Amino acid sequence: MQQNLFRFSDMFISETTLRVRYGETDQMGIVYYGNYAQYYEVGRVDAMRNLGASYLDMEKNGIVMPILSMNIKYIRPAKYDDLLTVKTIINEMPTTRILFKYEIFNETGTLLNIGDTELVFVDKKTFRPCKSPQWFLELLEKKFI
Amino acid sequence: MQQNLFRFSDMFISETTLRVRYGETDQMGIVYYGNYAQYYEVGRVDAMRNLGASYLDMEKNGIVMPILSMNIKYIRPAKYDDLLTVKTIINEMPTTRILFKYEIFNETGTLLNIGDTELVFVDKKTFRPCKSPQWFLELLEKKFI
Amino acid sequence: MQQNLFRFSDMFISETTLRVRYGETDQMGIVYYGNYAQYYEVGRVDAMRNLGASYLDMEKNGIVMPILSMNIKYIRPAKYDDLLTVKTIINEMPTTRILFKYEIFNETGTLLNIGDTELVFVDKKTFRPCKSPQWFLELLEKKFI
Amino acid sequence: MQQNLFRFSDMFISETTLRVRYGETDQMGIVYYGNYAQYYEVGRVDAMRNLGASYLDMEKNGIVMPILSMNIKYIRPAKYDDLLTVKTIINEMPTTRILFKYEIFNETGTLLNIGDTELVFVDKKTFRPCKSPQWFLELLEKKFI
Repeated sequence: MQQNLFRFSDMFISETTLRVRYGETDQMGIVYYGNYAQYYEVGRVDAMRNLGASYLDMEKNGIVMPILSMNIKYIRPAKYDDLLTVKTIINEMPTTRILFKYEIFNETGTLLNIGDTELVFVDKKTFRPCKSPQWFLELLEKKFI
Repeated sequence: MQQNLFRFSDMFISETTLRVRYGETDQMGIVYYGNYAQYYEVGRVDAMRNLGASYLDMEKNGIVMPILSMNIKYIRPAKYDDLLTVKTIINEMPTTRILFKYEIFNETGTLLNIGDTELVFVDKKTFRPCKSPQWFLELLEKKFI
Repeated sequence: MQQNLFRFSDMFISETTLRVRYGETDQMGIVYYGNYAQYYEVGRVDAMRNLGASYLDMEKNGIVMPILSMNIKYIRPAKYDDLLTVKTIINEMPTTRILFKYEIFNETGTLLNIGDTELVFVDKKTFRPCKSPQWFLELLEKKFI
Repeated sequence: MQQNLFRFSDMFISETTLRVRYGETDQMGIVYYGNYAQYYEVGRVDAMRNLGASYLDMEKNGIVMPILSMNIKYIRPAKYDDLLTVKTIINEMPTTRILFKYEIFNETGTLLNIGDTELVFVDKKTFRPCKSPQWFLELLEKKFI
């Protein structure tokens, strides 16, 4: 009898689209490598909004979320005017930290790059790490099955 | 007998150099038109530092200086790796507002663009316009003759 | 007998929305003044797309459109996560040059800033100014009545 | 008798300084996490210049160097007006790829973040990977002892 080792459903996935701006290209004719951090941010912020927990609310509740690490593997370049899809994935429950994974695709479905960022929940007043707010965990749990 | 109508010395000029970054170019192979606002900021901030009044001090003294207007005339493009000179000019005493003028040159002395920005002194707490601090006016007067 | 001196309909207006990114704010807690150039670009490019003449097509047809001038009046600041509307207006037929005017509003309908940019049609090979392509003029004429 | 297992000298280190711009901060009051990619670029380009092999020359010789991966660990934030030192390190000979490592320090010598980027040498015409040019390897060998 088979057992589900990996619960595939322990995963929250959010998709958002954005169009490459001219100012985001460089003279190589492709999107400048540093600009994907902004695309990831757009995906991450949209993921939180889709979860019902906008990042703006988080800050209004006294919590900021600085970045601890970012890793990107560039596979193919995005080009000017490309309509990109940023897939943002949360597949583990946050503690004082939260890991977001990203995949960016172009309009033909080609995978352009993958990456991740780890963020830490920080109390705005003390600027010290704190646990993920309970309401945020609950919103996330509803999405995990 | 001739009279000096224009007192040429009523002018504070500051020069700063910066090198064009790859990420500041676009696929036209020139600096993206929006990036000159940052170059003007670099020139403006250096002008204030040369005056003895760093913008950081200004903020620490409870004054922020948002921008009211910006005008740029693009004459020739800056290119990747160009070593640019930003000439920043103050030629009238500030009131609640201050006007900075800019000229950007490349290494061969070619004028690339001219522009200006008007800023307003704003009280950080009330977020209302206020007069230029007296100490700032005095620093500027020393430079005007 | 009255005569229409100003043909109000000689105007092409396009609207596009965009959301302020975190990386576009500065430590004053508002959108950095230099980033509106990108917002204007988004509006301009969308206006051309709505006209049936994408900027990408323009470049593929051998024409690039560098900027000659930009003017911005900042009225109120845009903030993080604001959903902005960029209104892009063409109200005169282009020659070798084309003038775009912009108005940016936030979600409550408050006017945040107004600006304009003048661009020049340039032959990609010779890098010399050229007339606006006939097909572009025709697309625009259809929108003017 | 002891043997040097690790040849410490197989390392080329270059240092460059840059000042944080206002537009590079975000509303958290620190440098936006995506902007370090530009700082790394400044360090990398300066390292190549110090080596005698400017990136501009590389492009003029028909080689572009797109990025394959970037990893950053954020330790402490950089702030507005900070004078940063970017330490760029090459400690292995390039093949078709080259690895740059980075350490960023503030004026008090505090380590703010570490990172690396891997780039690939690409023929500009064919847009296919190629070996590092011989002249570049020779310049680097001179620095390694």
